[in-house]
Amino acid sequence: MHFPGSHVLSIAQFQRQDVDRVFAVADAMRPYAHREKITRVLEGAILGSMFFEPSTRTRISFGSAFNLLGGEVRETTGFETTAIAKGESLYDTARVLSGYSDVIAMRHPEPGSVAEFAQGSRVPVINGGDGANEHPTQALLDLYTIRSELASRGRGLDDLRIAMVGDLRFGRTVHSLARLLQLYPGIHISLVSPPELAMPADIVESARMAGHRVVETEHLETGISGVDIVYSTRLQEERFASAEEADAYRGRFRLDQQIYTARCEPNTVIMHPLPRDSREGARELDIDLNDNPNLAIFRQSDNGVLVRMALFALILDVADKVDTHARPVNWFTERRF
Amino acid sequence: MHFPGSHVLSIAQFQRQDVDRVFAVADAMRPYAHREKITRVLEGAILGSMFFEPSTRTRISFGSAFNLLGGEVRETTGFETTAIAKGESLYDTARVLSGYSDVIAMRHPEPGSVAEFAQGSRVPVINGGDGANEHPTQALLDLYTIRSELASRGRGLDDLRIAMVGDLRFGRTVHSLARLLQLYPGIHISLVSPPELAMPADIVESARMAGHRVVETEHLETGISGVDIVYSTRLQEERFASAEEADAYRGRFRLDQQIYTARCEPNTVIMHPLPRDSREGARELDIDLNDNPNLAIFRQSDNGVLVRMALFALILDVADKVDTHARPVNWFTERRF
Amino acid sequence: MHFPGSHVLSIAQFQRQDVDRVFAVADAMRPYAHREKITRVLEGAILGSMFFEPSTRTRISFGSAFNLLGGEVRETTGFETTAIAKGESLYDTARVLSGYSDVIAMRHPEPGSVAEFAQGSRVPVINGGDGANEHPTQALLDLYTIRSELASRGRGLDDLRIAMVGDLRFGRTVHSLARLLQLYPGIHISLVSPPELAMPADIVESARMAGHRVVETEHLETGISGVDIVYSTRLQEERFASAEEADAYRGRFRLDQQIYTARCEPNTVIMHPLPRDSREGARELDIDLNDNPNLAIFRQSDNGVLVRMALFALILDVADKVDTHARPVNWFTERRF
Repeated sequence: MHFPGSHVLSIAQFQRQDVDRVFAVADAMRPYAHREKITRVLEGAILGSMFFEPSTRTRISFGSAFNLLGGEVRETTGFETTAIAKGESLYDTARVLSGYSDVIAMRHPEPGSVAEFAQGSRVPVINGGDGANEHPTQALLDLYTIRSELASRGRGLDDLRIAMVGDLRFGRTVHSLARLLQLYPGIHISLVSPPELAMPADIVESARMAGHRVVETEHLETGISGVDIVYSTRLQEERFASAEEADAYRGRFRLDQQIYTARCEPNTVIMHPLPRDSREGARELDIDLNDNPNLAIFRQSDNGVLVRMALFALILDVADKVDTHARPVNWFTERRF
Repeated sequence: MHFPGSHVLSIAQFQRQDVDRVFAVADAMRPYAHREKITRVLEGAILGSMFFEPSTRTRISFGSAFNLLGGEVRETTGFETTAIAKGESLYDTARVLSGYSDVIAMRHPEPGSVAEFAQGSRVPVINGGDGANEHPTQALLDLYTIRSELASRGRGLDDLRIAMVGDLRFGRTVHSLARLLQLYPGIHISLVSPPELAMPADIVESARMAGHRVVETEHLETGISGVDIVYSTRLQEERFASAEEADAYRGRFRLDQQIYTARCEPNTVIMHPLPRDSREGARELDIDLNDNPNLAIFRQSDNGVLVRMALFALILDVADKVDTHARPVNWFTERRF
Repeated sequence: MHFPGSHVLSIAQFQRQDVDRVFAVADAMRPYAHREKITRVLEGAILGSMFFEPSTRTRISFGSAFNLLGGEVRETTGFETTAIAKGESLYDTARVLSGYSDVIAMRHPEPGSVAEFAQGSRVPVINGGDGANEHPTQALLDLYTIRSELASRGRGLDDLRIAMVGDLRFGRTVHSLARLLQLYPGIHISLVSPPELAMPADIVESARMAGHRVVETEHLETGISGVDIVYSTRLQEERFASAEEADAYRGRFRLDQQIYTARCEPNTVIMHPLPRDSREGARELDIDLNDNPNLAIFRQSDNGVLVRMALFALILDVADKVDTHARPVNWFTERRF
């Protein structure tokens, strides 16, 4: 991966040294995200935020990350029905829209569409999720969170022990995370799901090929014992044939404080790509975990801003200039929690 | 009310000295809103504008106010169906979204929802309207307008005489304004409505407890005689069981120039929360009042920007720094009217 | 046309010297649009972008143009149903919304609505398209593109030979361009369409009154011979009574590389207002033209940013100050293609 001017379409583009570089830059973004100072390094730059499928968090996370570097955001949300209905090719759309910005963050419901768009784009494109295919910034922020949480425990990523829990069949984030982990040696992966919602076989196989130890189980209590990270997921009910079919699996693996105390090691980190389902009957992560300091789900979403800032800084080649354009913060910045 | 870092959820948070402070800061914002100079005091700060219910004016008024202080705006409009449908709690939504900004302005159709959101928010939240419950910035801009208009007549707020006209039952703005006026002594309130659309009894009672003289009438001509302010309102037809039921009240209290000349004192100020209904059959404020210099309805909406700038400045604790970061304006700023 | 503070509602406002001035300023905007430098001349200014009808490109083109001058954008998209449903007049809407910005770019489905809105606006309004009526910035960017393309061939606009091809009846852009060309002497216009989709007679007549030579034909090969510019258009199928009726004309005039080579002069410029219809059966401009250096359709959309920057600069009277507020660009700016 050569960053300046590169598209970010897939985690397959990243070697370990690339990930290390992203994470080092993300670390350097902390003082800005935490409002200890501001930077104007991207003053005058424009992010084209093209969310052809709604995703409030991802969209605002990208936009805020760009603002934090000093740039402006021009946004499109909702399906671009007009031009599509008029028969415009994605190539033409890209050629036109890429004339309006310096970098594009794009989400689109069709797998492969972001890569196709990138072929017509004059400026770098970051994939913000293309259907069931890829969501590389989510995988990077997940791994960055694992790294940060373990670092505060004096540990590195090598020999990580992680449990992935829930709907491992349709959950895009666990697929990408499992793939990204293959850059690291000695990972132990514990997969907890009903057999019908198991991790796709090709991902399990390639993890094993990478030297990872992968164990599959249907039992939450077994699966989360002896791990550093529990990565819980929501039932992707929108991918099931009917609500009834989804109901059969709803609430199957509920982690609460009692089970955590009984089964997890004292510092086991709890993660989730969010949103978590807090409705009666679902609750894959009970709200009684909110007071558990190892619940990292909100730090995880905060880290998304750092990782996206890092990607923008690397793609636009300003990582080494961010501090040069730093200024003091004028306003009240104390935050709750 | 302790401003730096505070949420602004309800007018009940405001004591008279707080209102005085907001209004003093709003006064100081005039040169910026009038483009005599610009300020960059909030350069690098991000407003999260979360309008889960549409409201073009309030949304843009908040956004422009923040821009005028030098900050950036990241916006969400429309109901956040995705995460709700996936079972996310408002607490989780707040924890996540508040990680992307320095302050949040939020509107939501459910009464109490903004306060609930604020409990999960790491940054200050300003209520931009939560259903039938509260819309504190509207009440503040209304009172600020009354104060400004009277000041140009050499008068203060004490002993104010105000007529509130129209749908006083469902009109949220008159409820809040009546409550806010209880901070001031000797107010005379003339309530003009059909009995079925009368001001709720608890508000009338608490006004009287505060020492206000409250008179209720069904007759416009009587009600608007001898007042400083006529505050007219639109029929909140969306709150009626049917259009037919609303029609029974439509156009009941129409103020036009003829009635104004006949019944009002020469300098009586005309206000309205807008939008006014200009359709044949409604016209609570006739367009022939557009040339009346006492028609303050557009100054009222302009004042909304000043009041919102003041709240941002106080909450983010930059009120005393705004002028330090002032710069000259480069562009043509002459305005019509 | 007196620019500072002026509305831009119709191409009828422009004399030749006005067009020359816009184009000269647009030329001066190139280094900023090409990221050779940035300018902050409009720092602190706010564009109110009011797109009551969707138009992703035009909306983002305006917004990016304003950002490139250093200003902020506050945006409204979609029909403003709320206030309309509540009976608000366009005059009131304009009075209120114009209090939130320094200039407004507006699109609205109703012919004449932007001019009506402008009457209530305190700040300059630029028409971004009002239904079938006007879209003056499109006409200006089309003419600017013709001028730029011919200039690179050592030619001026006088004695231009242009073919307009396709649905000349419903295509708003060819109407406006034909009218704007009347400011220049000696134009040869070749109109290629089925008789049922011919250019409206009044436009043909006024072109002839202006001394232009206008030829009408049904044959693409004849019509595009001996011209400097081929301006192709999409079938405006949404204006037809039925899809079947539109189908009768679809794909009637398809320009591809073979026909271009056979019939056009070697440097004939190919233009199109976009989107072009790339579906099988339509393809008024075949994708095999993408490698033809005379295909100017994407330069055309890029030029839209320059022309809109120029209009903002002239209306806000900063054209002579843009360079004074220039700064270097910090980021990687290399573009593909």
